[in-house]
Amino acid sequence: MTETDRRYMRLALSLAARGLGNVWPNPAVGCVIVNHGRIVGRGWTQPGGRPHAERRALDRAGEAARGGTAYVTLEPCAHYGKTPPCAEALIAAGIARVVTAHTDPDPRVAGRGHAMLREAGIAVETGVMEAEARAAQAGFLSRIERGRPWLALKLATSFDGRIALANGESQWITSAAARGMVHALRAEFDAVLAGGGTARADDPLLTVRSFTPLRQPVRVIVSRGLDLPRERLAGSLGTAPLWLAHGASAGTEARDWWQARGAELIALPETEAGLDPEALLHALGDRGLTRVFCEGGGQLAATLMRAGLVDELIGFTAGVVLGGDARAALGPLGLSHLTDAPRFSLSETRTIGGDVLHRWRRD
Amino acid sequence: MTETDRRYMRLALSLAARGLGNVWPNPAVGCVIVNHGRIVGRGWTQPGGRPHAERRALDRAGEAARGGTAYVTLEPCAHYGKTPPCAEALIAAGIARVVTAHTDPDPRVAGRGHAMLREAGIAVETGVMEAEARAAQAGFLSRIERGRPWLALKLATSFDGRIALANGESQWITSAAARGMVHALRAEFDAVLAGGGTARADDPLLTVRSFTPLRQPVRVIVSRGLDLPRERLAGSLGTAPLWLAHGASAGTEARDWWQARGAELIALPETEAGLDPEALLHALGDRGLTRVFCEGGGQLAATLMRAGLVDELIGFTAGVVLGGDARAALGPLGLSHLTDAPRFSLSETRTIGGDVLHRWRRD
Repeated sequence: MTETDRRYMRLALSLAARGLGNVWPNPAVGCVIVNHGRIVGRGWTQPGGRPHAERRALDRAGEAARGGTAYVTLEPCAHYGKTPPCAEALIAAGIARVVTAHTDPDPRVAGRGHAMLREAGIAVETGVMEAEARAAQAGFLSRIERGRPWLALKLATSFDGRIALANGESQWITSAAARGMVHALRAEFDAVLAGGGTARADDPLLTVRSFTPLRQPVRVIVSRGLDLPRERLAGSLGTAPLWLAHGASAGTEARDWWQARGAELIALPETEAGLDPEALLHALGDRGLTRVFCEGGGQLAATLMRAGLVDELIGFTAGVVLGGDARAALGPLGLSHLTDAPRFSLSETRTIGGDVLHRWRRD
Repeated sequence: MTETDRRYMRLALSLAARGLGNVWPNPAVGCVIVNHGRIVGRGWTQPGGRPHAERRALDRAGEAARGGTAYVTLEPCAHYGKTPPCAEALIAAGIARVVTAHTDPDPRVAGRGHAMLREAGIAVETGVMEAEARAAQAGFLSRIERGRPWLALKLATSFDGRIALANGESQWITSAAARGMVHALRAEFDAVLAGGGTARADDPLLTVRSFTPLRQPVRVIVSRGLDLPRERLAGSLGTAPLWLAHGASAGTEARDWWQARGAELIALPETEAGLDPEALLHALGDRGLTRVFCEGGGQLAATLMRAGLVDELIGFTAGVVLGGDARAALGPLGLSHLTDAPRFSLSETRTIGGDVLHRWRRD
């Protein structure tokens, strides 16, 4: 692998990122086609999941693709789905060399894309910027490999880790720019997840509103008994999908009411401790979600954390101090040893509107 | 003021910073002497407060100072203290032009330094990088203008703002590099301040130990009744000064015991709410401290915060989650409106050993 290969793969990865949040259950893939040192086509997975990145890049390149090299952030697909396989399209276009970041673990592909290309006499190189690609595709890989989406937990807190005063006042702790960024983050995820308490309190809509996204994320609200602010939430059903995860204690009347208005109901096993968080995430994975953004509240966040399901932390820290009597960002975890506390590694830090943004990934 | 003037003043400010923590009750000043476009002398306030920066820079420059320009981060002193005034030394050395950041508010100087220079025919320009210089000299200015030291509050917390598990376990939340940096920060302050509970718990010594500082900061421990770990603390009295701020409830036996071992006692007014934080800070200012670094615990930090005495926040955030049942970083503030919450503006953020360091100044 050459530095040139890495440079084009880096470009393909940056194109792939444009699909995040818009392409589930498909992976967000990027593709760059280079011929005689010139970029002749670029593509990324389109909203809804197709056309695929390779198809887009080939269409842009046209005849210029012949004899060229295709850089793809994931092994091209090899199966007939709603579209013919990308491996076939690359062969038909006369591509001479294909460079990929890694093999697609989807059992319908799993090396068959690479094999199909090689059989057609195409030079195939894989493993270029594999670590970066795997990090970028963490959601897609999580769903394939673990059967559940990648889960990010956002906390927007005061300097001392509080999300509201004791009386519930929380508007606003972070800056307008940071709040705008939360909307941008929502758009990069397939779904926004919140507990019923949060839906009842600050922002029951959970939609992307600071700009018009290509696709509104699914709203997933976890509420044992479906006691939710009906009018406000139902009024937004035309804007974004609403999935309601509930327990056995949700009555027929409530279930029927929501179903009649187009909400999708997800029945979860209910114990004394509440709804089963593992079952929740697997239900979301079964329905195709690859990236989920949890915005609290503290009880849901603690439940997910205790179950070891949080893959990423996204913190916004503001320069305001609320004190120990203000509301905690997270419910109790019941830890008795520091070595048992979940640890995360810093992946990014920046300032936004005077607040500090810090992102961490589970160790 | 030219860009060249600003460049040399920036250098003088970086030299001045070397004195922080070592020169109280004096200001940490920097001086650069330039002649015919060459730097011929550099100086900064020496440990203990003298020689002053100008004296050091003139000594380095020798005859090369004649006809040159002196850049000084604060108006040169004009009064006979333990040393002759710097204004006189600059005149005697034949300096042709003096550029300063601002006038020294110390009533013994207060413009007289600049006047003395002008009377001797020296061209004087002031106000060069004044805002930066004032920020750097915040401690000295606070003591002169407010009669109390600049107060920084450090919190080293988990992602969710916790400083220990419910059972008190706190070693370690942040990285070794971050903890080493806390020692470096201690050395940049005149004194380290802690409540009795903190002194009894994690780090009763409060000394700089990750390297050998030019001067150990004074340790100030606030303990109403002087119920402190005697042997451990007394054993370190040869290493660093120990000042004990106590209330009327501290018995004669305890006071005598500490005094006999060289600790300095500071009696404070005691109310039901505890020791008076204003009185504490003014007592520290009276004794010459300009920069104080508070390391908690949560009750002392909340008392200082409620009294509006915290000028700076220094946060270390680690990628570990402890939960809402773990110990809060700060005691209660009793706020009922977000607009009443103390606000701070971000001054610096960086990563250290995998943790995020963020510094804020009071708005």
